[in-house]
Amino acid sequence: MTVTSPKGFLATGLACGIKQSGALDLALVANKTLEPVACAGVFTTNRAAAAPVKISRDHLSIAQMATGVLINSGNANAATGKAGYDGAMSSLNGLAGQLGVEPTNLLVCSTGLIGIPLDFTTITKALPSLVDRLGDDQASGEAAARAIMTTDTFPKQVAIKEGPITLGGMAKGAAMLEPSMATMLCVLTVDARIDPGILQDCLSRAVDESFNKIIVDGAMSTNDTVLVFANGNSGVTSSQAQVLEMLTRACQELSGMMLADAEGGSKTASITISRASTKLDAIAGARKVASSLLVKCSLHGGDPYWGRIVSELGSTVGDFDLEQVTVSYGDYCVCRGGVGVAHDTESLIGYMQGSHVDIYVDLGVGSESETLRFCDISAAYIEENMRTS
Amino acid sequence: MTVTSPKGFLATGLACGIKQSGALDLALVANKTLEPVACAGVFTTNRAAAAPVKISRDHLSIAQMATGVLINSGNANAATGKAGYDGAMSSLNGLAGQLGVEPTNLLVCSTGLIGIPLDFTTITKALPSLVDRLGDDQASGEAAARAIMTTDTFPKQVAIKEGPITLGGMAKGAAMLEPSMATMLCVLTVDARIDPGILQDCLSRAVDESFNKIIVDGAMSTNDTVLVFANGNSGVTSSQAQVLEMLTRACQELSGMMLADAEGGSKTASITISRASTKLDAIAGARKVASSLLVKCSLHGGDPYWGRIVSELGSTVGDFDLEQVTVSYGDYCVCRGGVGVAHDTESLIGYMQGSHVDIYVDLGVGSESETLRFCDISAAYIEENMRTS
Repeated sequence: MTVTSPKGFLATGLACGIKQSGALDLALVANKTLEPVACAGVFTTNRAAAAPVKISRDHLSIAQMATGVLINSGNANAATGKAGYDGAMSSLNGLAGQLGVEPTNLLVCSTGLIGIPLDFTTITKALPSLVDRLGDDQASGEAAARAIMTTDTFPKQVAIKEGPITLGGMAKGAAMLEPSMATMLCVLTVDARIDPGILQDCLSRAVDESFNKIIVDGAMSTNDTVLVFANGNSGVTSSQAQVLEMLTRACQELSGMMLADAEGGSKTASITISRASTKLDAIAGARKVASSLLVKCSLHGGDPYWGRIVSELGSTVGDFDLEQVTVSYGDYCVCRGGVGVAHDTESLIGYMQGSHVDIYVDLGVGSESETLRFCDISAAYIEENMRTS
Repeated sequence: MTVTSPKGFLATGLACGIKQSGALDLALVANKTLEPVACAGVFTTNRAAAAPVKISRDHLSIAQMATGVLINSGNANAATGKAGYDGAMSSLNGLAGQLGVEPTNLLVCSTGLIGIPLDFTTITKALPSLVDRLGDDQASGEAAARAIMTTDTFPKQVAIKEGPITLGGMAKGAAMLEPSMATMLCVLTVDARIDPGILQDCLSRAVDESFNKIIVDGAMSTNDTVLVFANGNSGVTSSQAQVLEMLTRACQELSGMMLADAEGGSKTASITISRASTKLDAIAGARKVASSLLVKCSLHGGDPYWGRIVSELGSTVGDFDLEQVTVSYGDYCVCRGGVGVAHDTESLIGYMQGSHVDIYVDLGVGSESETLRFCDISAAYIEENMRTS
């Protein structure tokens, strides 16, 4: 159920001292033979991207191959200038020395506060111990999953087995969830044999259908990173379709865990916009509803106030005709032709009090649709984000 | 200090029964002679615009002249279909009969909950009494200002006198403030003589420099309306420059009151983006920062966490180079060249605890700038918006 589930992957995690709490804060995932294997990555498009994002992107661009990834939590190493870049490189050089590999075959991720200098000696000192502890068992994988957590309340792990091929993964936070501690990170491992270019294509498409379809607060982190390593240890060359399907499933499971663990959220929801004129209208409408503070407040209160939904859509969707609009919560239609319609109020309130609400808006003007998942907002979100120290 | 301050304007407000609390909920502002006068309007661009917005826009488009405006609070008459449109028209027809004017010379505004049928008989029955009470004194103007309030904690009024010309105004809520009760409304009166086309141009520019530069939660209501009536009663033909200046000042004063009275807000702030490559970059960056939930949380907590600001800008501004970025809170520079710099932490914390914080970001890549005003978010915002009933 973790990154060590596929054949031939090592992992571990330990506490090196970045987190003052003494919790695990340094993780390593690597191919067991230490040879570089096919590797693909999807990175934040934030122009304030952190040093580790730049380094990993550079190293991956050389050959779409890598041996492993070093990850620290507790400090994002973002907006830390040349010192942050040089420090991350020196950590990788140190790790490369320990492992006996080229530094360019290693990737690096960081997650935590932005703009705070990171003392890299804490990492460098811990590298021998980190390498010593590497293991291919479940406990080693789980240690890595725990070491990348920030305000997550549980480690997020997944494993999928299809015939001879196993895919494992771990993730933390959500990009749009709690950027006070910034960053969603995800590392996936698979023992299929696959061309790196195809792997990159599959990962990009899997991310589009999972992490890019959840919204917590509409913020995009400086550090968001999703990586997949494919070492071929199963001895089986996987079809593109199979890898795409397995990656998509794993990413969807992990993104669901992120949403369920969203800081200050108490319930989840989906918004489906259907019969839009264009795909862009469907996407823009769904994003607007899912990131609307007022819709989130209504969701939190279990209040079926559909007026906020049509108001948000009317200010966003290009081709919008209120008289064609139908709005439903689960099976309960509350608005048809742009006006309220009679419904079983008591049953609807019962549905709205549940832990998950599905919202459907039929725009009635075309054939395009989009579904996003999101969560509510509670006073706890504000309490938890108003101070970082 | 209100809409009756300029010569020759009547106003009043009463409780007709829309609000269950028994508070004032129906207002009328009109030119004293009941002749139509020069009138201009700026309306929401929301495609789910409410019936009263459509009617007022239509009536104004005929001749850019109007006699007065009927306003109800407690129900937005939005997403109410044909019944809502017909009801608003019948109210105006009834009022026109009472006043002995053409219905097309009257405008109408509504503010309150969206999607709830409005019982127009409450309004129709109250019309004779409303017309009876019209007065040109301060108390009559204030009654109107109180009758348009929803969750406002104080009536928002202004008057500006320049030589022989007086401009008065009243407003409620903020477009992007508490759309659970939807709508920002503003009615301005001026006794200058001015061409309706010029008046419209001045109003549009004044709104751009005031109401369009405050942000509370980034929502755009179905009912937002700003109107100005110019009756020429001062006997003086005003210059375009003077009317523009007076309108801009009045709108800025009223928008400042809206921000200070923002639901669930406890302090205000400004964000200035300077040295952007393009005006669009400056505007997009300022809007992103001002509407960022995380920036609002930090502001609420008095936490100078500038990492969130550069992260939001990096995900928004087209031409962004972190190494050129400087961030300051008031006089305290906290980030230069994209990295944190030493500052007087204790004094800065003191400044952040104040009731207003000015944030300056110098992007260092061009010469365009933009300033927006916004407010923080507290747990009270969520409590107040999670249920509408």
